[in-house]
Amino acid sequence: MSSSPTGASRLFPIVGDPIRYVESPARLTSTFAERGHDALCVPMQVPGDALDAALAGLAATSNVDGLLVTMPHKHTAFGHCASSSDRARLLGVVSVIRRNPDGSWHGDMLDGLAFVKAQQDHGATIEGGRALLIGAGGAGSAIAIALLDAGVAELVVHDTDESRVGELLDVLQGVGAGTATAGPPDPTGFDLVFNATPLGMDDDDPLPLDAARLTSSMFVGDVIGGHGTTPFVAAARDAGCRTATGTHMVEAVQDLMADFFLGE
Amino acid sequence: MSSSPTGASRLFPIVGDPIRYVESPARLTSTFAERGHDALCVPMQVPGDALDAALAGLAATSNVDGLLVTMPHKHTAFGHCASSSDRARLLGVVSVIRRNPDGSWHGDMLDGLAFVKAQQDHGATIEGGRALLIGAGGAGSAIAIALLDAGVAELVVHDTDESRVGELLDVLQGVGAGTATAGPPDPTGFDLVFNATPLGMDDDDPLPLDAARLTSSMFVGDVIGGHGTTPFVAAARDAGCRTATGTHMVEAVQDLMADFFLGE
Repeated sequence: MSSSPTGASRLFPIVGDPIRYVESPARLTSTFAERGHDALCVPMQVPGDALDAALAGLAATSNVDGLLVTMPHKHTAFGHCASSSDRARLLGVVSVIRRNPDGSWHGDMLDGLAFVKAQQDHGATIEGGRALLIGAGGAGSAIAIALLDAGVAELVVHDTDESRVGELLDVLQGVGAGTATAGPPDPTGFDLVFNATPLGMDDDDPLPLDAARLTSSMFVGDVIGGHGTTPFVAAARDAGCRTATGTHMVEAVQDLMADFFLGE
Repeated sequence: MSSSPTGASRLFPIVGDPIRYVESPARLTSTFAERGHDALCVPMQVPGDALDAALAGLAATSNVDGLLVTMPHKHTAFGHCASSSDRARLLGVVSVIRRNPDGSWHGDMLDGLAFVKAQQDHGATIEGGRALLIGAGGAGSAIAIALLDAGVAELVVHDTDESRVGELLDVLQGVGAGTATAGPPDPTGFDLVFNATPLGMDDDDPLPLDAARLTSSMFVGDVIGGHGTTPFVAAARDAGCRTATGTHMVEAVQDLMADFFLGE
């Protein structure tokens, strides 16, 4: 379903650099149309040093009802928000922004939530589960928060950069009721095994963990989207695991964003 | 023909206040698609005091290749242009802006040109003609320049505000080879009779001139668009005149804008 702009269209720009590969302009615009809204997600190629000017201009444009924020702007954009969700504030980043009644910005971070929703949509039970998360960067941090918010009982985080794990564990203090600890990249005994590293973006990347240790009782999820089935997901399927891909996460985030923007 | 945004879409925002009634987002986006370009015209509701911030933000957004400018911003936007056409400079206003190679803005004023094109597209011969123009405001001034640029031999301008006529005649010094003078709103003896006043926007407006004096040899054009056939155009048709409407002008400007933006 496609939609032509009108003079009355509401705008939800996505700001990033590079922007040309993002899928939200087509996907979210379709979602808006399906929900009966004359609204567009439009791409805005904004270099790092231009974000302040771009956001000031968009703030002054009164049919801009919200923004999507992608690399490299998620941290800087947080600083433009007058209010934010707890999960955004924990990491100091936002992925989406909408207007407060006074016109100021309210930020949220939906990436982790979208990852969890993609797992659940494909059969994973998060609540009460034992989860191994590989990768404690931006994506991994958001996912860790979302997993604890969703009721995971035990979360073990691994990253080749151990200092990042330590910083994330500090952030996770008090989030949810489950435990969060550091550990090795060994999936043995886990219910949920997740890759939040960039491994899989390049064809010759190693797997994020030893796939020989995956067993069919595990649910395996990957953040890598736009690259078809990653070798990690393929290996998990070979081991009999149920899986969710990065593409499923991209699909899940469209509905979450539309809900956030439209207040539904 | 409609077109969905993609991450690679080029943007041509239209800035104005109010913006919701403009037709360019749908029309120009269709024209871009018909010409094979992944490009969108999107509406931006920018109040008068917010134009500087909005233009600074758009200048910093590198997939914004151009802008359409409508009320009340045409004069202020001219001040943001590093270069402009002669016709824009004469009036100090712009209706369209595109990038120079260094990223700065180049402005032009296509409204008068679009009006002349609409007349020609519907059978008027401008070159060598005698034209009566009612209205010396923004629209009338742009049309006067375009008529002289297009080779009208004699132009008589009338406005109930005589000082506006005097100011316009000063501007018209040296434009084209025809003469430009002030005169009464009497179409007798003219080949071309044009309304550039707002009369016709409201149902109970008087006609801009005495329609009993229209004869079938005259070509009659009106700037008023979006109101169906105006009483003035209806009266001209009753008198046997060929006519062009404000809607025809809106149609003509889409092609001129696409040419301007795409360098075609």
